[in-house]
Amino acid sequence: MPELQRTPYRFSTAEYEQRLKKTRASMERQGLDLLVVTDPSNMAWLTGYDGWSFYVHQCVIIGPTGAPVWFGRGQDAQGALRTVWMGEDHIIGYPDHYVQSMDRHPMDYLCAQLTDRGWSRGTVGVEMDNYYYSAKAHERLVAGLPEARLTDAAGLVNWQRAVKTPKELEYMRKAARIVERMHRRIADKVEVGMRKCDLVAEIYDSGLRYDEWSGHGGDYPAIVPLLPSGPDAAAPHLTWDDQPMKKDEGTFFEIAGCYQRYHVPLSRTIFLGTPPQEMLDAEKAVLEGMEAGLEAARAGNTCEDIANAFFRVLDRHGIVKDNRTGYPIGLSYPPDWGERTMSLRRGDLTELKPGMTFHFMTGLWMENFGYETTESIVITEAEPELFCNIPRRMLVKQ
Amino acid sequence: MPELQRTPYRFSTAEYEQRLKKTRASMERQGLDLLVVTDPSNMAWLTGYDGWSFYVHQCVIIGPTGAPVWFGRGQDAQGALRTVWMGEDHIIGYPDHYVQSMDRHPMDYLCAQLTDRGWSRGTVGVEMDNYYYSAKAHERLVAGLPEARLTDAAGLVNWQRAVKTPKELEYMRKAARIVERMHRRIADKVEVGMRKCDLVAEIYDSGLRYDEWSGHGGDYPAIVPLLPSGPDAAAPHLTWDDQPMKKDEGTFFEIAGCYQRYHVPLSRTIFLGTPPQEMLDAEKAVLEGMEAGLEAARAGNTCEDIANAFFRVLDRHGIVKDNRTGYPIGLSYPPDWGERTMSLRRGDLTELKPGMTFHFMTGLWMENFGYETTESIVITEAEPELFCNIPRRMLVKQ
Repeated sequence: MPELQRTPYRFSTAEYEQRLKKTRASMERQGLDLLVVTDPSNMAWLTGYDGWSFYVHQCVIIGPTGAPVWFGRGQDAQGALRTVWMGEDHIIGYPDHYVQSMDRHPMDYLCAQLTDRGWSRGTVGVEMDNYYYSAKAHERLVAGLPEARLTDAAGLVNWQRAVKTPKELEYMRKAARIVERMHRRIADKVEVGMRKCDLVAEIYDSGLRYDEWSGHGGDYPAIVPLLPSGPDAAAPHLTWDDQPMKKDEGTFFEIAGCYQRYHVPLSRTIFLGTPPQEMLDAEKAVLEGMEAGLEAARAGNTCEDIANAFFRVLDRHGIVKDNRTGYPIGLSYPPDWGERTMSLRRGDLTELKPGMTFHFMTGLWMENFGYETTESIVITEAEPELFCNIPRRMLVKQ
Repeated sequence: MPELQRTPYRFSTAEYEQRLKKTRASMERQGLDLLVVTDPSNMAWLTGYDGWSFYVHQCVIIGPTGAPVWFGRGQDAQGALRTVWMGEDHIIGYPDHYVQSMDRHPMDYLCAQLTDRGWSRGTVGVEMDNYYYSAKAHERLVAGLPEARLTDAAGLVNWQRAVKTPKELEYMRKAARIVERMHRRIADKVEVGMRKCDLVAEIYDSGLRYDEWSGHGGDYPAIVPLLPSGPDAAAPHLTWDDQPMKKDEGTFFEIAGCYQRYHVPLSRTIFLGTPPQEMLDAEKAVLEGMEAGLEAARAGNTCEDIANAFFRVLDRHGIVKDNRTGYPIGLSYPPDWGERTMSLRRGDLTELKPGMTFHFMTGLWMENFGYETTESIVITEAEPELFCNIPRRMLVKQ
């Protein structure tokens, strides 16, 4: 058998060990003996595991000692072998007849494995509201670990991910170069009559292809490109169709560059024709509000401070926005590129720390149009670092 | 306010009403008064709802009478208005401060709404193991509906989707044309030294762009292209990197065409150089096994019959495959394009019916290589209809 081709690890073992240490410290504070991690982003952050296998049950176990244990479908253990930093003895594959079966559940198999390891007692943290931890998985785990007490540890690992390491920031800066290329391509190609699906093909092309200057290609973002036009842009999460772009409509482009699973989202708006005054007014308010928000985005302030600074300007312009105005970003898998911890909104008093990264999501979805121009930022002691350098103003093409 | 631009409905109201009727009949058989549907594919099948919003809590409610009720984030109600067949009074949006909050859960809001409608008693079916129904969502629903009895209805709607209507088959045939184009493009472009990310850009391009002859463009498949090479192809769910394609390696391409959210997956294998004998032997066994499997794939037979016919040939060639060898396909959202009901595997005695559609997934993941050539099929009274017309043999390029 040829030597196993392992993917070069994305991070040093020292960095993974540091992540594990932080996670264990948080487990200790919450009185957890064991942690069952089902969120694919958390799994990847702890172990390096990378694969499109989250449509079947899988998890990472943090036991009382030692390296994390990867648990998943037998055939995906091959993918784990190639991507995780732990040894083969920390990889458990379950047999295929547990997959999408009405009679057997992968969590039953996990419970037997935990019992074998003497890990079936004490307080077990589970991610009650993270992705891919179904009500059924929880039910089977509760039934299979009668001597354990299961408790909600949703967000525990997510919070450890908030402050980025230099290597993580390096990956995000590469993702930033990618999303800049994507926006430049859109600006270059979009025109009246172009079919939206063709524009999406251009977006994927610019987000994926190897760039000789930067020396890397792109990965798949956790969300597909969103680019609704005209009144449809009032609905922020519609995906594309194959109809032609129309004259006198605005379109916002909510996209992200992705490198080694690290995301940098950036939105811009393009108008084909002459934008109505209400859109120009909205833009003026947003651009001014962004300056105020960015001014407040520094270590020592809180999440709410950014939101309040932004909303205060919008209020002054008579615009009511009741959504949150941003969220932390970094390592992600579908269906979301947010970290789901803090939110830039009123009432979130989380203190900003250097190395935290946010998508300052200043989009407006009005009754008849949508307008998005956003920035992805790194918090520092002074003014925030902007990941991207793309003009914020709406591009108007005749 | 301009008239709302509604997306043309993908199906007639009569077809949606028929789906609702089938679902209610199944609810009745299972003694359900209410059904809470969280699987995005099931939500779309029942209502037409289409949007990338499944990263927040949302669902469709089938009450005792009347049309389905869509429930989701306030800003996504705009997307619901544009895509569902029901009227505005059947759309409930929850306020944004329920989104990813530690203190409030969207299911709390839902419970209040159900109570207002007098739907908070009786037996309530929930999709315990479907996607996006988290353990927390279940916990909140149980707590918020103290007079109701919650019971597992996972798969209830999925099963109604098994036999496709003529309109659904029409969409799938369009998806088939797309995946054919994708494979032709791959065959045309792949060569030693080409970077994998660039090949993925070609795959997206061919899967998305408007085709003047067919008169349509493509939608995003529920899974990204999978194209592992050489020994990495032993791991079926690794995604791409930005490294060059190597000489004397095989690569399988597991991809799907997607049209109006309907999928037709198709896999093929390409070898750059001279394939080793063991791969040629494996191919011989698979091609022969596929013929046997397709022979067994007809109305009146069972899922197991297809698998047994295929495995029998593999056994004779000394190849052990312990995975299932196919699954039903159709309408899907990430993270999976399978319907998660039947499986083509030993022990599945589901009777095949005309109009059922399967991905006959005859991939082999051996210790040092992977080989995939598959077909997507429609069951008929006689031999199955093959969705695609692409040679099954491995393409060998020097």
